[in-house]
Amino acid sequence: MFRKIKNALISVSDKEGLIDVLKVLKKNKINIISSGGTYKAIKSLRFKCEEVSSYTGFNEMLDGRVKTLHPKIHAGILFDRSNKKHYKQMIKQDFKPIDLVIVNFYPFQKVVINSKNKDKIIENIDIGGPTMVRAAAKNFKNVLIITDKSDYESFIKEVNKNKGGSTLKYREYMSSKAFGTTAYYDSIVSNWFNDTLKIDFPEKKTFFGKKFSQLRYGENPHQKASLYISSYNDEELGLNKLNGKELSYNNYNDIFSSLDILLSIKKMPATVIIKHANPCGVSCNKIAIKSFVNAFLSDPVSAFGGVIACNYKINEKIAKEINKNFIEVILAKGFNEKALKILKKKKNLRIIDISKYKKNNRVLNKNFGNSFLIQNKDEIIYNKKDLRCVTKIKPTKAELREIEFAYNICKYVKSNAIVLTKDFSTIGIGAGQPSRLDSCKLATQKAFKFRKKSIRNCIAASDAFFPFADGIKTLISAGVSVIVQPGGSIRDKEVIDAANKAKIKMIFTKTRHFNH
Amino acid sequence: MFRKIKNALISVSDKEGLIDVLKVLKKNKINIISSGGTYKAIKSLRFKCEEVSSYTGFNEMLDGRVKTLHPKIHAGILFDRSNKKHYKQMIKQDFKPIDLVIVNFYPFQKVVINSKNKDKIIENIDIGGPTMVRAAAKNFKNVLIITDKSDYESFIKEVNKNKGGSTLKYREYMSSKAFGTTAYYDSIVSNWFNDTLKIDFPEKKTFFGKKFSQLRYGENPHQKASLYISSYNDEELGLNKLNGKELSYNNYNDIFSSLDILLSIKKMPATVIIKHANPCGVSCNKIAIKSFVNAFLSDPVSAFGGVIACNYKINEKIAKEINKNFIEVILAKGFNEKALKILKKKKNLRIIDISKYKKNNRVLNKNFGNSFLIQNKDEIIYNKKDLRCVTKIKPTKAELREIEFAYNICKYVKSNAIVLTKDFSTIGIGAGQPSRLDSCKLATQKAFKFRKKSIRNCIAASDAFFPFADGIKTLISAGVSVIVQPGGSIRDKEVIDAANKAKIKMIFTKTRHFNH
Repeated sequence: MFRKIKNALISVSDKEGLIDVLKVLKKNKINIISSGGTYKAIKSLRFKCEEVSSYTGFNEMLDGRVKTLHPKIHAGILFDRSNKKHYKQMIKQDFKPIDLVIVNFYPFQKVVINSKNKDKIIENIDIGGPTMVRAAAKNFKNVLIITDKSDYESFIKEVNKNKGGSTLKYREYMSSKAFGTTAYYDSIVSNWFNDTLKIDFPEKKTFFGKKFSQLRYGENPHQKASLYISSYNDEELGLNKLNGKELSYNNYNDIFSSLDILLSIKKMPATVIIKHANPCGVSCNKIAIKSFVNAFLSDPVSAFGGVIACNYKINEKIAKEINKNFIEVILAKGFNEKALKILKKKKNLRIIDISKYKKNNRVLNKNFGNSFLIQNKDEIIYNKKDLRCVTKIKPTKAELREIEFAYNICKYVKSNAIVLTKDFSTIGIGAGQPSRLDSCKLATQKAFKFRKKSIRNCIAASDAFFPFADGIKTLISAGVSVIVQPGGSIRDKEVIDAANKAKIKMIFTKTRHFNH
Repeated sequence: MFRKIKNALISVSDKEGLIDVLKVLKKNKINIISSGGTYKAIKSLRFKCEEVSSYTGFNEMLDGRVKTLHPKIHAGILFDRSNKKHYKQMIKQDFKPIDLVIVNFYPFQKVVINSKNKDKIIENIDIGGPTMVRAAAKNFKNVLIITDKSDYESFIKEVNKNKGGSTLKYREYMSSKAFGTTAYYDSIVSNWFNDTLKIDFPEKKTFFGKKFSQLRYGENPHQKASLYISSYNDEELGLNKLNGKELSYNNYNDIFSSLDILLSIKKMPATVIIKHANPCGVSCNKIAIKSFVNAFLSDPVSAFGGVIACNYKINEKIAKEINKNFIEVILAKGFNEKALKILKKKKNLRIIDISKYKKNNRVLNKNFGNSFLIQNKDEIIYNKKDLRCVTKIKPTKAELREIEFAYNICKYVKSNAIVLTKDFSTIGIGAGQPSRLDSCKLATQKAFKFRKKSIRNCIAASDAFFPFADGIKTLISAGVSVIVQPGGSIRDKEVIDAANKAKIKMIFTKTRHFNH
C-alpha cells in the first residue's frame, strides 16, 4: 500500500542531518509542521514551516511541556484513512491528516551521564515526543514514523522511489523500530528510577540494549548473534581494540569472564587466563611479568588459544613473553609503543586496551526463554568476622592473605570449584563437576602435571562444604596444608577430624560461592 | 511534601476494585474526571464524575482514539505547582490542576494471546493511557500516579493517612512503578512487532519480565534473587507444584536446564537428571521406568540430591523407584493418584507437573552488566546431508539412531563435552573442562565406575573436534567403538588414522555444539 505524504510533523531534539530530510520534503511538496527549537532550526535553514501553535490555534505553554499534546495533532496522526466515519469527523473539525512524523527525544540518557541534578534529569523525560511516536507507529497503515537519524538515508530513498510516498512494508518496519525506541527510552527511565530508589527486584523489570556489533556467528557457526551495550552510555563498550581480527561471540564471552575476575583483584598486578569461560590460570605478583608467567604455568596446555587479561600496562619485556605463546586475545590497561609493535607482529592477535572499561553490574540475570532469574552479584569474598579456624593448628597471617586470594578465585569457577594456590598463583583448578570429589581429583591432577614443585604446602579453596571427608583426603595426600571452605555439612566433624589427623589447617568462612 | 488531591483523572481498562477507590475519593471530596467505559462504570456505581469531553469542551473522536490527548488534561497534569509563570498560564487558560491519575492500559498482551487478528492486536495498543501515566509519573513532585490495581490498597491507606493527600516518597515510588509499567508495555509491543517481522537482533532490544516469585536467596544465601516470567502470558509459568518446599534459585536453574534437554527428546519416554546445572544422566526407553532406572545408573553418586525431569506420567511403580533415592525435585507430565500418594510421603520432595510447560526461546541472552550477548538458540542436532563416515568401517542404522541421541545430549553439556552412551542412555559424561582430553578421561572414568558392563562398544559424542589424537585414543582404549564429532581440525587425518587403526567407526557432522 503506497501512500503519498501531504503533511509532516517534525520535532527533533537532535537536529543533525535535518537539512537532507527538508530538501526531500520540499521537492515532494510536503507541508511541514513543527514547534520550538525544531521550528527555529527549520526556519534558519530557510525552509517553509508552520508552527504547531498556529496549526492548532493553541499556544504552547508550561515552558514547552505542552505543545503537541493536542487533538488536532493526534487525530491527524491516528485517524483511520479507510474509515468513513473517521473522515467525516476529521472534516467536521477541519483537521488535516499528518502522514509523516519525524521525532527524536529529549536526551535523557546524556543528562543522566553528565548531571547529578535530579530535577534536571527528570525534566529531560520527554512526554510529547513518545506520544507522537507511539501514535504514528500504531497507525503505520497510514503514517510513516522516523525516530532515528540513521534512518534518514533510507527514508530519503524510500520517498524518492515512491514519488513522495512510502510502502506499507517500510512503514511497518519503521513502526517496529519506533516501538523499539519508546520501549528502550522508558526502560532507561525505569531503570534510572529503580537505581535511584535502590530497587533491584521491581514488579516489572525491563532490560535495554543497543546493538554494538553484529557478530559473525554465535557460540557455533549455525547460530546468529549480536553484542548489545546495556548502559546509560550506550556508545562505548570500554574495550579499545588496537589490533587483530573481529571479536567472536566466544571471545566476548571469555573476555567478560576474564574482566570480572581481573577487576575483583585490587592493589597487585594480576593476570587472568580464560579458556571456555572458565579460568585456567590466575596470578598476582608485585612484579607484573611474574604474574603473567605464573598464570600461564598454572595450565599451559589449556592456556593455548586462551584469553588473557592483565590489570597492568604491557611493556616490551612482557610483550616478548606473551609472544612466546599462542593466545587469541590479550587485554591490558594500556600497552607501551614498543610492546605494541612486538605484539602486532602476530596479525591475528586481538589486542585490547581496557583502560576505559568499567564494571556496572549490581544484578545479574539468567534467561530461560519464558522466564529469567535475577540475583544480586556475588560481591563479597567472606565476612572477616565469620572466619573461623576449626583445626588445632592455625594459619599464619601470610596464609590468611593467600586464603583470601584463593577463595576469591573460587567464586568465579563453575560448579563444585576447587582451587589450589601457592604464592598468589593458581596451581590447579577443578571445575564443572557434579561431584566435589571429582573436582578435588582434577585440581590435584593439574597441579601434579604442571606445578609439581609448588604443590607441597599449597592452599585449597572450595566454593562449598565437603559432604564427605573423601575430597579433603585427596587434597591432603597431594600436599595441601591449608583448606578454606564455607563449612556447614552434617559431616563437618568427620572432615575436621581428618584435617586434624593430617595436621593441616582448615578455615570455615560461612560464605558459599556457588556459580553455575 | 504532603500534597492534597483536588482533582483526579481515572481511565481504567480493568475496572476491578474501582469501587473502593471511588469511596475514598468521595470521602475526601476529590472531583473525578473520566471518559468512555470508565465514566460509565463510575456512573453505574452511583458516584459523581465529570466526563473528559465536558471537562475539555472537546468531544471524543475516532472511536475513542482521541479523548484525553488534550492540553487541558496534560497541562493539568504537567504544570509545575512551584512555578509562578506556570500558575499564571493555567489561570489564563482556566485550566485546573489534576493531582491524581489512575490509569491501566488496553490489554494488549491478552489480545496477543487470544487473537491472531493483527488489526485487532494493533488496535489494542494504548496511546492515551501511557501518555497520561508518563506525564503524571514525570511530575511526581505534584501528582500521584496509580497504574496497578494491586496498589489500590496502599493508595487508600496513603490517602486516608494523609487526609486526602499523599507524601512525596509515596508519589516517587509510584512513579517508578509507572515507568516500569510503560517500559514493560512498550517492550511487549516492541517484541511483538519483532516477532511478527522475524527480527531477532533489532537495533534497540528490550527484555521484559513480571515478578513471579521472590526467592529466599540467589545462588548463595548472601545474594537476593527473584524469578520473573517473560512471556505474553505473564501469569503462568507452566510449572504446577503439587508438593514440597519453596523452590530455590538453584532449583529453578536446574529445572530449566533439565526441561531444555527433556523437550529436545521426542517420541520416546525420556528421563533427565541434572546436578549443578549439568546433566549427569539422560536415558530414553520405550518402557518409561527403564528410562528412569538407566538415567539414574549413569552416575548415581551425582544424582544424589539432583533434579529429575520425565516426559511421561508417573505411575505407582515408578514412584516407588523414585522414592528409593534422595532427590530434590521431580518433574513429570502428570502423576497418577497412587503415585502422588507414594511420592508425598517424602515431605520435602518438590513434585512438579510440567504438562502445561511450553518452551518459547528463539533467542537466548547472556548478560554481563554493561552489555549482553544475544544469540539464536542452538536448535539443530546436525544436518543429515552433512553426516559423513570418515572411517573404513561404517556404522549400522541402529548406531546412527544412537549417534543422534548422543550428539543431541552433547549440545547441553558445558565446555568440552564428551558424552558416552549405550542403548539410548548416557553411561559417562565429561564436562566443564578447559581441555578435551580431560573430558575424555572424565567420561570414561565415570563409565568404568558406574557402567562398566556397558562400556564395551559404546558410542562417544564430542561437541567439537579433537585437536589431537590423544582424546580419541583414551576413548578407544576404554572400549568406545563409534565416535561422532563435527571434524574440522588440522589434525583430522591423524585422528581418522587412529580410528581406522583401532577399527572403530567415526562420523563427522560439520555441526559444532559449544555451550558455555
